[in-house]
Amino acid sequence: MSQLISSSSSRPVIAMMSDFGQGDGDVGVMKGVIAGIAPHVQIIDITHDVAPQDISSGAWILASAYRYFPGGTVYVCVVDPGVGSSRGAIAMHAGEWFFVGPDNGLFSYIMMEQTVHEAVILSNRAYHLSEVSSTFHGRDIFAPVGAHLACGVPLRDTGTQIDPGSLHRISDGYPVRRGSGIEAHIVHVDHFGNLITSIPLSMVPELFSSAEARVIFAGSPVVVDKRRRYFAEGAEDSQPFIYGDSSGYVGIAVRNGSAARVLSAGPGTIITFVTSNK
Amino acid sequence: MSQLISSSSSRPVIAMMSDFGQGDGDVGVMKGVIAGIAPHVQIIDITHDVAPQDISSGAWILASAYRYFPGGTVYVCVVDPGVGSSRGAIAMHAGEWFFVGPDNGLFSYIMMEQTVHEAVILSNRAYHLSEVSSTFHGRDIFAPVGAHLACGVPLRDTGTQIDPGSLHRISDGYPVRRGSGIEAHIVHVDHFGNLITSIPLSMVPELFSSAEARVIFAGSPVVVDKRRRYFAEGAEDSQPFIYGDSSGYVGIAVRNGSAARVLSAGPGTIITFVTSNK
Amino acid sequence: MSQLISSSSSRPVIAMMSDFGQGDGDVGVMKGVIAGIAPHVQIIDITHDVAPQDISSGAWILASAYRYFPGGTVYVCVVDPGVGSSRGAIAMHAGEWFFVGPDNGLFSYIMMEQTVHEAVILSNRAYHLSEVSSTFHGRDIFAPVGAHLACGVPLRDTGTQIDPGSLHRISDGYPVRRGSGIEAHIVHVDHFGNLITSIPLSMVPELFSSAEARVIFAGSPVVVDKRRRYFAEGAEDSQPFIYGDSSGYVGIAVRNGSAARVLSAGPGTIITFVTSNK
Repeated sequence: MSQLISSSSSRPVIAMMSDFGQGDGDVGVMKGVIAGIAPHVQIIDITHDVAPQDISSGAWILASAYRYFPGGTVYVCVVDPGVGSSRGAIAMHAGEWFFVGPDNGLFSYIMMEQTVHEAVILSNRAYHLSEVSSTFHGRDIFAPVGAHLACGVPLRDTGTQIDPGSLHRISDGYPVRRGSGIEAHIVHVDHFGNLITSIPLSMVPELFSSAEARVIFAGSPVVVDKRRRYFAEGAEDSQPFIYGDSSGYVGIAVRNGSAARVLSAGPGTIITFVTSNK
Repeated sequence: MSQLISSSSSRPVIAMMSDFGQGDGDVGVMKGVIAGIAPHVQIIDITHDVAPQDISSGAWILASAYRYFPGGTVYVCVVDPGVGSSRGAIAMHAGEWFFVGPDNGLFSYIMMEQTVHEAVILSNRAYHLSEVSSTFHGRDIFAPVGAHLACGVPLRDTGTQIDPGSLHRISDGYPVRRGSGIEAHIVHVDHFGNLITSIPLSMVPELFSSAEARVIFAGSPVVVDKRRRYFAEGAEDSQPFIYGDSSGYVGIAVRNGSAARVLSAGPGTIITFVTSNK
Repeated sequence: MSQLISSSSSRPVIAMMSDFGQGDGDVGVMKGVIAGIAPHVQIIDITHDVAPQDISSGAWILASAYRYFPGGTVYVCVVDPGVGSSRGAIAMHAGEWFFVGPDNGLFSYIMMEQTVHEAVILSNRAYHLSEVSSTFHGRDIFAPVGAHLACGVPLRDTGTQIDPGSLHRISDGYPVRRGSGIEAHIVHVDHFGNLITSIPLSMVPELFSSAEARVIFAGSPVVVDKRRRYFAEGAEDSQPFIYGDSSGYVGIAVRNGSAARVLSAGPGTIITFVTSNK
């Protein structure tokens, strides 16, 4: 994709994600704040329908989306059950992008997949709204900081630099290599009942050449066929198979059926993924 | 409207329609791809809540909307149950607009109502993302092709020209003149229970002057009053009447009631429409 | 916020609100009309999920949002059960903003909170679409007028000036000072069950210093604690307390619970609000 996103006449993009829904105007208000600070920015919604306060789900949706936005995009992300408490408000420069939001694990996949060049606690109130509420940091802190970053304000000016290693990460089910396997979990069930795992395709290049792959669900070994390229390549019956989901993560599907139902699995289900070259 | 849409300083518009919903970030990803290729384009959503895989419904919603966008608008439309199969991926120049999407009948009304100047199969991979998945052509093919067209890439450069006559069209209930009548179907029931037919108002200019119009539902003749301009002009009782819906299609309504309920009709109901000058 | 919204290179904003939902393309069509007239305008959705035909709810959502948009923003608002009847179509310049929509009370809070500099009945058809339907003034009148205003057309050119005092206002429960109290009503219940009143915080500066505040629900006196800044400051039990909601209105909450349930109150509940300095 790199040849496509190198536009000579770039225009800053702010991509937004939250669990606010679209019913009560909160998302519109954040955009109004952005428009007042950064009129020439293009604002794009990833989604505002993250399951309420579900940090893990929000983290994954962001992970499946961010690579497709132009370099320089500023992500303003708010799934923030701890708003008003002592949880930090942060911004970071990772890979080619900038991320603004609460320090609660929402950026876990980003930190796994990209180099974090710099991270700050958003302590500089000059870049917040002049009155900061205790219940709507999306409007009062994250939107204005994101807008200023999109205008070219250096990240370090927005707050105090911190060690990226100290940032909060989601702990449960995060994919970890253990011997020949990867411990991971199911992060998403799509419209068709396909199970999306937390394992990025880039973590398992051998998947595309090895003869066999196995997924162990909660202790019960289930042998699945090797990777298939198309759903139509799947077996006719209800034998699950592994495929590369368009999100960039390993998926498990059943042809013309629901892998979630066949395997009795869903978000949070712990899996171990093993490949073996014959 | 022509005096209004001739803006001297135009800015390209991409209008999007799909059945993806807004919950999982797919629409946002498509916009991220577009922003990377065509930063100065304005992206407008028609809707992403087309009933899942309902090509007929998507075709009509597009038909009711497209005339109101500026000339040059590129429509990126994805209601695509056959993604990954052998169905074609197409783009066409029809009327003053460009349309990109699957060749499955989604553009049936466009082809009926507008001259198709040129149509292509999207075979030129230089305008796709460098990796094309088998399950998300909206992101990998339709969004980038639409973005390149909005940037001024000539349609013929995006693929192989084909005969527009060979493109897939929805067959059932498409309005066809037979003798003095028009065979059509109900395409939509709106919030108020009004029945919207597949007959464009431009197909029946006599409706506005003739003394009487009849709609025959599934073989049972129902005589309806002549056209009325306002809902408030309708009879006080439950007598259905014909009106020009704001979508540009013939509608059937009941004052302060639901025509769908009174007439036991809904999407797909076959009708014959007859006007007679007294 | 004033330091933030004074951008030297401003770009016109049109903010939209309606009860159309996003399912049938009507909102997209309005944006298409705007894009044809005013290509360089930025269009931002407040929400399109106002409860159908609920003018009171729409008025409050607009009130909670409008202050956060840049000066000059044009609000195109359509919650319009009387479309096609004799209700007026209006535009007005109030505070730093412009408002376009039906004259049915949707702008009641704006007129209470801001100086109305000028108001007009939209009688100049040169700024409407050339064909105006009787059922979709959002598309045919409000969107094109809003777009022309955003392009710099003077308000007075769009119609006939009228006395702002003659414009329709919502009457029931609108906050009114009576002696030492304010009669108001509940306008919104948020995700957490917090009750939002119709009383703007700017109306009760004493709330932030007085020792005690009382809210009387439907005649039964309920003594609530004085204002708290954070939800976490609330008492541990189910004692309701008053807080300044991020919308800019007085709210009533219960820590870790639903004030709506504890107090058996919801939209429309009449309240009397009293503060007393000790």
